[in-house]
Amino acid sequence: MRLVSTFCRLVSLRRHDILSNCQKQLKTPATIRTLYIGHPLDQWGKNKKHRNVKLNLYFEAMGDPEMEAVLAPLRASVKEQGDLVRQLKAEGAPIIDVKKAVVELNARKKILEDKELSLAPNVTFDRAKMEDLLKRRFFYDQSFAIYGGITGQFDFGPMGCAFKANLLQTWRQFFVLEEQMLEVDCSILTPEPVLKASGHVDRFADLMVKDTKTGECFRLDHLIKAHLEKVAADKKASQATKDECVDIVIKLDGMNKAEMAAVMQKYNMKSPLTGNDLTEPIEFNLMFATQIGPSGLIKGFLRPETAQGIFVNFKRLLEFNQGKLPFAAAQIGNAFRNEISPRSGLIRVREFTMAEIEHFCDPNDKRHPKFENVKDVKLLLYSACNQMDGKPAERKTIGEAVQNGLVANETLGYFMARIQQFLVKCGIDPARLRFRQHMANEMAHYACDCWDAECLTSYGWIECVGCADRSAFDLTQHTNATGVRLAAEKKLAEPKVLDVVEAQPNKGLLGKTFKKDAKAITESLAKLKIDEVEELEKKLESQGAYDLSVGDKTFNLSKDMVEVKKYKKTEHVEEIIPSVIEPSFGVGRVMYSIFEHNFKQRENDEQRTYISLPAIVAPLKCSVLPLSSNQEFVPFIKKISSELTKVDVSHKVDDSSGSIGKRYARTDEIAIPYGITIDFDTFKEPNSVTLRERDSMGQVRIPVDDIAKVVHDLAYSKQSWGEIESKYPKFEQQESKEING
Amino acid sequence: MRLVSTFCRLVSLRRHDILSNCQKQLKTPATIRTLYIGHPLDQWGKNKKHRNVKLNLYFEAMGDPEMEAVLAPLRASVKEQGDLVRQLKAEGAPIIDVKKAVVELNARKKILEDKELSLAPNVTFDRAKMEDLLKRRFFYDQSFAIYGGITGQFDFGPMGCAFKANLLQTWRQFFVLEEQMLEVDCSILTPEPVLKASGHVDRFADLMVKDTKTGECFRLDHLIKAHLEKVAADKKASQATKDECVDIVIKLDGMNKAEMAAVMQKYNMKSPLTGNDLTEPIEFNLMFATQIGPSGLIKGFLRPETAQGIFVNFKRLLEFNQGKLPFAAAQIGNAFRNEISPRSGLIRVREFTMAEIEHFCDPNDKRHPKFENVKDVKLLLYSACNQMDGKPAERKTIGEAVQNGLVANETLGYFMARIQQFLVKCGIDPARLRFRQHMANEMAHYACDCWDAECLTSYGWIECVGCADRSAFDLTQHTNATGVRLAAEKKLAEPKVLDVVEAQPNKGLLGKTFKKDAKAITESLAKLKIDEVEELEKKLESQGAYDLSVGDKTFNLSKDMVEVKKYKKTEHVEEIIPSVIEPSFGVGRVMYSIFEHNFKQRENDEQRTYISLPAIVAPLKCSVLPLSSNQEFVPFIKKISSELTKVDVSHKVDDSSGSIGKRYARTDEIAIPYGITIDFDTFKEPNSVTLRERDSMGQVRIPVDDIAKVVHDLAYSKQSWGEIESKYPKFEQQESKEING
Repeated sequence: MRLVSTFCRLVSLRRHDILSNCQKQLKTPATIRTLYIGHPLDQWGKNKKHRNVKLNLYFEAMGDPEMEAVLAPLRASVKEQGDLVRQLKAEGAPIIDVKKAVVELNARKKILEDKELSLAPNVTFDRAKMEDLLKRRFFYDQSFAIYGGITGQFDFGPMGCAFKANLLQTWRQFFVLEEQMLEVDCSILTPEPVLKASGHVDRFADLMVKDTKTGECFRLDHLIKAHLEKVAADKKASQATKDECVDIVIKLDGMNKAEMAAVMQKYNMKSPLTGNDLTEPIEFNLMFATQIGPSGLIKGFLRPETAQGIFVNFKRLLEFNQGKLPFAAAQIGNAFRNEISPRSGLIRVREFTMAEIEHFCDPNDKRHPKFENVKDVKLLLYSACNQMDGKPAERKTIGEAVQNGLVANETLGYFMARIQQFLVKCGIDPARLRFRQHMANEMAHYACDCWDAECLTSYGWIECVGCADRSAFDLTQHTNATGVRLAAEKKLAEPKVLDVVEAQPNKGLLGKTFKKDAKAITESLAKLKIDEVEELEKKLESQGAYDLSVGDKTFNLSKDMVEVKKYKKTEHVEEIIPSVIEPSFGVGRVMYSIFEHNFKQRENDEQRTYISLPAIVAPLKCSVLPLSSNQEFVPFIKKISSELTKVDVSHKVDDSSGSIGKRYARTDEIAIPYGITIDFDTFKEPNSVTLRERDSMGQVRIPVDDIAKVVHDLAYSKQSWGEIESKYPKFEQQESKEING
Repeated sequence: MRLVSTFCRLVSLRRHDILSNCQKQLKTPATIRTLYIGHPLDQWGKNKKHRNVKLNLYFEAMGDPEMEAVLAPLRASVKEQGDLVRQLKAEGAPIIDVKKAVVELNARKKILEDKELSLAPNVTFDRAKMEDLLKRRFFYDQSFAIYGGITGQFDFGPMGCAFKANLLQTWRQFFVLEEQMLEVDCSILTPEPVLKASGHVDRFADLMVKDTKTGECFRLDHLIKAHLEKVAADKKASQATKDECVDIVIKLDGMNKAEMAAVMQKYNMKSPLTGNDLTEPIEFNLMFATQIGPSGLIKGFLRPETAQGIFVNFKRLLEFNQGKLPFAAAQIGNAFRNEISPRSGLIRVREFTMAEIEHFCDPNDKRHPKFENVKDVKLLLYSACNQMDGKPAERKTIGEAVQNGLVANETLGYFMARIQQFLVKCGIDPARLRFRQHMANEMAHYACDCWDAECLTSYGWIECVGCADRSAFDLTQHTNATGVRLAAEKKLAEPKVLDVVEAQPNKGLLGKTFKKDAKAITESLAKLKIDEVEELEKKLESQGAYDLSVGDKTFNLSKDMVEVKKYKKTEHVEEIIPSVIEPSFGVGRVMYSIFEHNFKQRENDEQRTYISLPAIVAPLKCSVLPLSSNQEFVPFIKKISSELTKVDVSHKVDDSSGSIGKRYARTDEIAIPYGITIDFDTFKEPNSVTLRERDSMGQVRIPVDDIAKVVHDLAYSKQSWGEIESKYPKFEQQESKEING
């Protein structure tokens, strides 16, 4: 069975839909009637249902004996099933039996997970309030809204765009420059054969059904889930029916086309919008198709991931690296997936930015020279084994995890640690970050190991970064498809002496005799194995001729047409197909998780919300606020603004008429970490201004001549706010007063 | 006649094909047989024909009396025709007559331009050599080459990608941050109605013909040009035929579909590849089409420019800017055009990055607050007037040009000056940069003024940046298409008192009476003009009822259903549709021009080529080169590398075995401006290293402790090489010796 990596990766991306508790409502794509208008429920930021979603930070309560007592039987039930799966595999049981056991395992895992979350302390999170802020201050919003909008497409406004640009710049600094990776920028439009080889043309599909009258489409798993939840919620339903519905919803993720079709039929499902009949399930390829060139003959797709651009350039990159392994290539760019029913804001979209790394290394040597630097980094690891045993995630150093063999190799472990460091630097709460290992049934067969960095949000655990050892799969696929060997040379520890037996053609004579077939004959001779060459030699000697089969033709070769040569050859290098370790970042998902982890409300004032983005990714580093519209402030504004620009500090002058407190609140909303206030004391020699920090609302007084450098150092983490507070005098005016001022 | 901006902009982009002297060979898109293989002649970097292209720097010789004597009659001939065009327009002659006169004007201009170039001193430029370097060191290369490649698509390798990223980062710093523009990041997939409103669906097309048997496509103007050049080159052709061919090629740009079809028929043109018959000319839309969502009902395109994303977000952006004008929005992103036959490397591609600015301002006040800062910047301006008068381009300050009315307004002038400053900062040779004004016949009717920043390359003058005053066109189009008013409010100097006459509906009664039609009736009443309301009032009074037409229905309204109110209203603001000034950068074209302007050969060694990119855009700022593989160098390499990383200096350690001279040559090829060499003297206290500058090959000796800061300051233009040379001792070892060392 050949599974396709990217497909499997996507299957894992999709798990979250079904597991998520927060999406009770079926959402549908555009209809004919509302051609560009998504279903009303798709209007993100307006759904009051999402007020006060409970976030269950289970792991913070881990180890509590009372909780554990409640969970113990559920843990045992998972373990029992996990052991059965292991046993079936060990016994070489039929695939279908293993599959069934895995579906049951997942169902039991889900019950355990739900229970864990229900017992854990709740943190309430008001998603609607956050989305309202993000929309109102145009961090991002639905694309083409004046035309009704398209679901699953978003435009980033000034603040979202600057945040994204800073995040990507930080990524580039953190990965590409720090590790001297080879960054590339490849085409989005991709011809079909490339994606045929990668497996996307055949496998990258979701099941859907269509309304037989209106043509409206529904993603089948969404449809079944919504229908069964409705049935289960019906007061008149029997307990047996309710139980069955819950059971099917849990097992949905493991069902195939026929099984889902059977469920549809049993429950007589119709279109939830029109009540019309639905078609049989159809496999819908998620790639956007188009035609390249005017002839209509070259079929192409918008790439569904950036990785393939790196693989097809492997030879050039290896050459650029002077033939040496290991090396890593990286790419930041857009990818596209024609989702049947996009949902969940930035989490499931049709157009998105990825940042991918492909680290190529010797398959027999996956050590990493800088592993030593990260070996003490602690990660919350949710191993496949613990998932099967019903145990919780565990915090471990990556050094320990690699040494125990839990994480397959140093390079994979190195990247996991670096991913965590990067995410935390950019604002992910480490308490809401875990690495979940793919279980054997989720992982592509060729992959050695795969861990997803998942962030806990109000949508549940969201996969934000995948980190997989993809072995030699992709390079092998493209080699097979093109005949171009995507391989590297490795110096042998000791030269190898080989006995070579070759059938050497007399090309001139072959050409004369066989004309245009001569080339195929020559190629065929070159491909003969040793025993075949020896057979040929024997025949030529004994019978003076040899019948060579090429395709469906046979050619009679005489002794003068081919000569068998035997000699010794010393080889100093061997050819290897490198392994690929791939960290793959979903930029929109990372951004969304950062928004959730940094959305805050001021104590005692729920209406005063803000986003505490770290300065390094904040859209603007600083605001410049004159106390009033007094013209005497203008020269100071100009001087400070121009000096901030000189030291590359992005900033916003807000000289509008609101009180200073109101303007602070407004800049807090757009995540500006520092604010410079010019007031009447600024006129006094030596001229000084107030500098305020967003999160603590602390204020200090700083000379005008120092201010640009101080903000620069703060913004680029050269100094901490604590250091600045200890160096300059505190400014005591209370902010709460100012709000009313 | 409503011309469409983007179409016109493209017409102007296309002019260069036909004018270019360097493309004698017809290139064709992929055929059926070689599905993914471009025509062999498309293999860029292999075409030896392009060795030693002559670059004619005419303007450097401008004013030479002997040359001017030769050119005088040609100038007079252009002026004569230019005057005729003006006269016809003044007289309001039929459009067809004006058009014919313009075609003749263009033909005469072309003859003048050719002569100018032929008289000017030649600079030879070896394009094949440059392309070989760019390919070999993987700055960029054809996409999907292992699958045969697709014409018009390129992948940027590590050096090209880093150059591009630095160029875009510089652009962002120079425009977005410096001017506090609102940068956005909008969707690429665009639904049809948006591009219908912008005019792209109907007008964004090229003419093509198809081989009737193979389906192979040819761009019609390319086909005709290649065919006629072949005819003219035939020794047996009569002089009359030759003259006619030359004449048609010159006039091709101005021909319409029917005229080109006539030429095809007259010369009996067949497919140049198969000799088969060709179809009639077909208009081929250049946008890539796809379907959004699974239903197949939502047609979408890949955006052909980034600008529309800004226009459809105008309301959100205005709101973000607190309702104030002027403001500018910016966007960097990819756009797509399904070229019929892409060619000329990076100049004409199917997928490309644009950086666009839309500056929104009061149509009655296009002053710019920072114009004062740039008014003395000198630009080479090739005005429409000089083009019509047969005069050359002139160098003028932008202050003078705006004052004279040559450039329409301060804002346009401000951006032109800033464009030049940016391009020169990034490596464009100011001597090969001009601003060419669109002539009235090229410009969209609504545009007030349009200037293209053109760079002189071996392909001729290439439009790299367009800078147009697009008036209120785009916002108006989207307003008309959606009903959402994309307008701003402007405070009136004095409040205006208006007499208001309104037909106020009794909504309850209307609803009761007309049910679902009530809404349309209410809307219709609100739209009535003053005289219509008065008419209604009269009818209601005289007859007690009024017949209101809504669409094709008529509703009889009684007196109690609608009341006419008259009152006075004081308005403090008026609604205006802002004008848009649009600088639009073709990033690939700018990059290509920078490559050409910075490709150099060492004196006395033609084989030693390098690229003298300014440090700010160079892919890597610095190399670190240990003199040999001596292990004692390692701690110094690590220390220096880590300190460079700390101060954000991208660099490459090259510890390969080549001589230091060879390694310098290799880093010169990839445009690294500075090289740090660690040699045996480095061990001596105080430890020091050699720092070498790429262009001058000058070397100085610098303490190890200073080196990171020195390179940082050089790379980010905080200090010049001259300053460093005067501060540190010169290092005298000759590089030429080292090459052989």
